Amino acid sequence: MTVTSQQREFLKESIKTIPDYPKPGILFRDVTSLLEAPEAYALSIQLLTDRYRDSGVTKVVGTEARGFLFGAPVALALNVGFVPVRKPGKLPRATLSESYELEYGTDKLEIHADAIHPGDKVLVIDDLLATGGTIEATVKLVRRLGGEVTDAAFVIDLPALGGEARLEAQGVHCFSLVSFDGH
Amino acid sequence: MTVTSQQREFLKESIKTIPDYPKPGILFRDVTSLLEAPEAYALSIQLLTDRYRDSGVTKVVGTEARGFLFGAPVALALNVGFVPVRKPGKLPRATLSESYELEYGTDKLEIHADAIHPGDKVLVIDDLLATGGTIEATVKLVRRLGGEVTDAAFVIDLPALGGEARLEAQGVHCFSLVSFDGH
Repeated sequence: MTVTSQQREFLKESIKTIPDYPKPGILFRDVTSLLEAPEAYALSIQLLTDRYRDSGVTKVVGTEARGFLFGAPVALALNVGFVPVRKPGKLPRATLSESYELEYGTDKLEIHADAIHPGDKVLVIDDLLATGGTIEATVKLVRRLGGEVTDAAFVIDLPALGGEARLEAQGVHCFSLVSFDGH
Repeated sequence: MTVTSQQREFLKESIKTIPDYPKPGILFRDVTSLLEAPEAYALSIQLLTDRYRDSGVTKVVGTEARGFLFGAPVALALNVGFVPVRKPGKLPRATLSESYELEYGTDKLEIHADAIHPGDKVLVIDDLLATGGTIEATVKLVRRLGGEVTDAAFVIDLPALGGEARLEAQGVHCFSLVSFDGH
């Protein structure tokens, strides 16, 4: 499955760029504008689904909150369960938690401890790959529960931030529909 | 479109009940267990989509974060745009915000000011209808932007908490796939 250059351009045109957000010097890639364009949103789900249709994935894991917007529709299309990874205190059953680094300080992510089983083959999906910190924490959570993670998929990659190299070093192959230079 | 009693039972059985969460005396209805059951999750999206397929809806609005899990797939199935309503500081473009009451204090929700246009016919979707406070704030945001809201749809209704009466008083017709007695 290959994404054509025409499809890439169509998706990129649907993603607005907000200068100086959330702080001066940052070009923020706004995936919410893609959600508002039904053909672009549907294409992004179709391309992600097609790529993993015959991969034997048994669960899709997506990270709060924008990861839900792509992970859940792909799980539905693949006919497998969707497992949310959330900020602390949001999941009602017993959880595992994992810390990850922010620019200043750390934060935590949680997963339901009974949501992944040994033998599960898990695809991690998020809207955007930047430094890869939240995805690395998500991969650790899934592996601590006995799940296998070999792939993570994104709508947008920001290669300058090094997320792909960081995740590949953990044995996670990354796939993105589009990429943008710079931050 | 009617939901059969068999479909209701199937959906209810996929929703775990967590006693004493988030505090003693509360029976928490855990929609994440439905997400893990692909047939139940797909059925919930199909039933919501079927109900609004010929309703002339032009946008689906869903509230962070669990509303994304149902609103986004329904928007995709209806081939209309999805507009997220989020906690403050999460949306990068110009926003409108609206306060709503919590048990103690208030919180705010935001919407992109350019995401809804006069003439839009908006369906609001969330996972669960309790007191209706966040949905009432969401309806206000859409209406301030000139959008029409006549319907809100939920997977779960907790009738004892009065959300439906509150929203009907605002001219919003509520539809839920299943309901649970008590809190």
